[in-house]
Amino acid sequence: MNSDTPSQHISHRFDEELAAVKSQLFEMGGIVEKQVTDAIYALLEVDSALAEQVVANDEQINDMEVTVDEDCALILARRQPAASDLRLVLSIIKTTTDLERIGDEAGKMAKQAIMLAEEGRAPRGYVEIRHIGESVARMLAQALDSFVREDIELALKVAQEDKAVDIEYGTAIRAMVTYMMEDPRSISRVMSIMWSLRALERIGDHARNIAEHVIYLVKGDDVRHVGLKQMAKTVHNERD
Amino acid sequence: MNSDTPSQHISHRFDEELAAVKSQLFEMGGIVEKQVTDAIYALLEVDSALAEQVVANDEQINDMEVTVDEDCALILARRQPAASDLRLVLSIIKTTTDLERIGDEAGKMAKQAIMLAEEGRAPRGYVEIRHIGESVARMLAQALDSFVREDIELALKVAQEDKAVDIEYGTAIRAMVTYMMEDPRSISRVMSIMWSLRALERIGDHARNIAEHVIYLVKGDDVRHVGLKQMAKTVHNERD
Repeated sequence: MNSDTPSQHISHRFDEELAAVKSQLFEMGGIVEKQVTDAIYALLEVDSALAEQVVANDEQINDMEVTVDEDCALILARRQPAASDLRLVLSIIKTTTDLERIGDEAGKMAKQAIMLAEEGRAPRGYVEIRHIGESVARMLAQALDSFVREDIELALKVAQEDKAVDIEYGTAIRAMVTYMMEDPRSISRVMSIMWSLRALERIGDHARNIAEHVIYLVKGDDVRHVGLKQMAKTVHNERD
Repeated sequence: MNSDTPSQHISHRFDEELAAVKSQLFEMGGIVEKQVTDAIYALLEVDSALAEQVVANDEQINDMEVTVDEDCALILARRQPAASDLRLVLSIIKTTTDLERIGDEAGKMAKQAIMLAEEGRAPRGYVEIRHIGESVARMLAQALDSFVREDIELALKVAQEDKAVDIEYGTAIRAMVTYMMEDPRSISRVMSIMWSLRALERIGDHARNIAEHVIYLVKGDDVRHVGLKQMAKTVHNERD
């Protein structure tokens, strides 16, 4: 016989299960991150083979979402976690949804890249794609990093960056509308840039969502609709 | 003393808690449904007052999402549900996320309606908005109804309709690009129609997601990425 008590056994296996599902989530996060940077690269470099690969990889992300969710449901049913363990499982469930949607958006962008590879490069918009693309790729990396390290300062930073991205997105869209008016023959190709900008903006939103799940996990407060000021107060332990 | 045993007490109160959170979800669903039909009406009828109201109401939906989620977390922590009760709580958590996103999309559409009320009606696209709008409003109503009645045949129907909406959306977008090329002065206003069509298409996706949560709730199978054929098999108890 082992000298551990049964409850230590159970608690040890529970910790292992939580660690396993967390590591699955982060593996999924790493793959989604690569999908996003590959989709951006494929669009900028007119690399339709890479874009096709991004589209094909989406299935793997979908499968991971289902697996992580199943494992979370099993943990809830068998282990009946409370307090911070419960928050961890709930944060993981929410985060997989956002990661899956980010994967979808990367796929949509890759499809626009394929279209542009066929029709020829758009006359404009690549500066905007590169700029906003770099911002949201960084936001996603930081959001995942903030989850791994339970770093709520970093999570707050992601939410703050999302606001800047939304403003840049608005400016870029207005610029694209102007280009289309100046050169109507390019409308179809500039539309591909617009849909790609939209996908990037949505990826930024989902990165912010992930950051909000991290703050919920660590602080126990739901900061999804409170605004940046209140979010900073929550992170810095200031109460109203 | 009451003649009930303590466990009956607990189970009775548990049932009440589940019923309460379910009824909150359906109340939220009703409000979101109205937001969608109001946003469509505001766009079609150039009713900017109604559109402003849709934008303002979004906060209420956000609050409801947070409340329902909190109540679900409390039920998980206190009641430690298993089997179909656990699936119900997980389905509610997932469905609130979709309802909140639908609310966001209705808000985005309402903002385009406000823009078009200022700039003047777009020369084209209202037939498409009306047609796709009716389809997705019906899908959303049916998705919520399938949850209330746990009617998986109806849920399957919603998923099948989403495919038709996606095809109609693609056709409408191509038509809008053609209009823009023919009349570049209308580009900005036709873009408002395009973003509204996009919002409708996304609402259809979220209605389908809700339908998938209903099938998970009733059958215990995750049908999110299996395709319509496999989904029908799951609903009709056919195994591969």
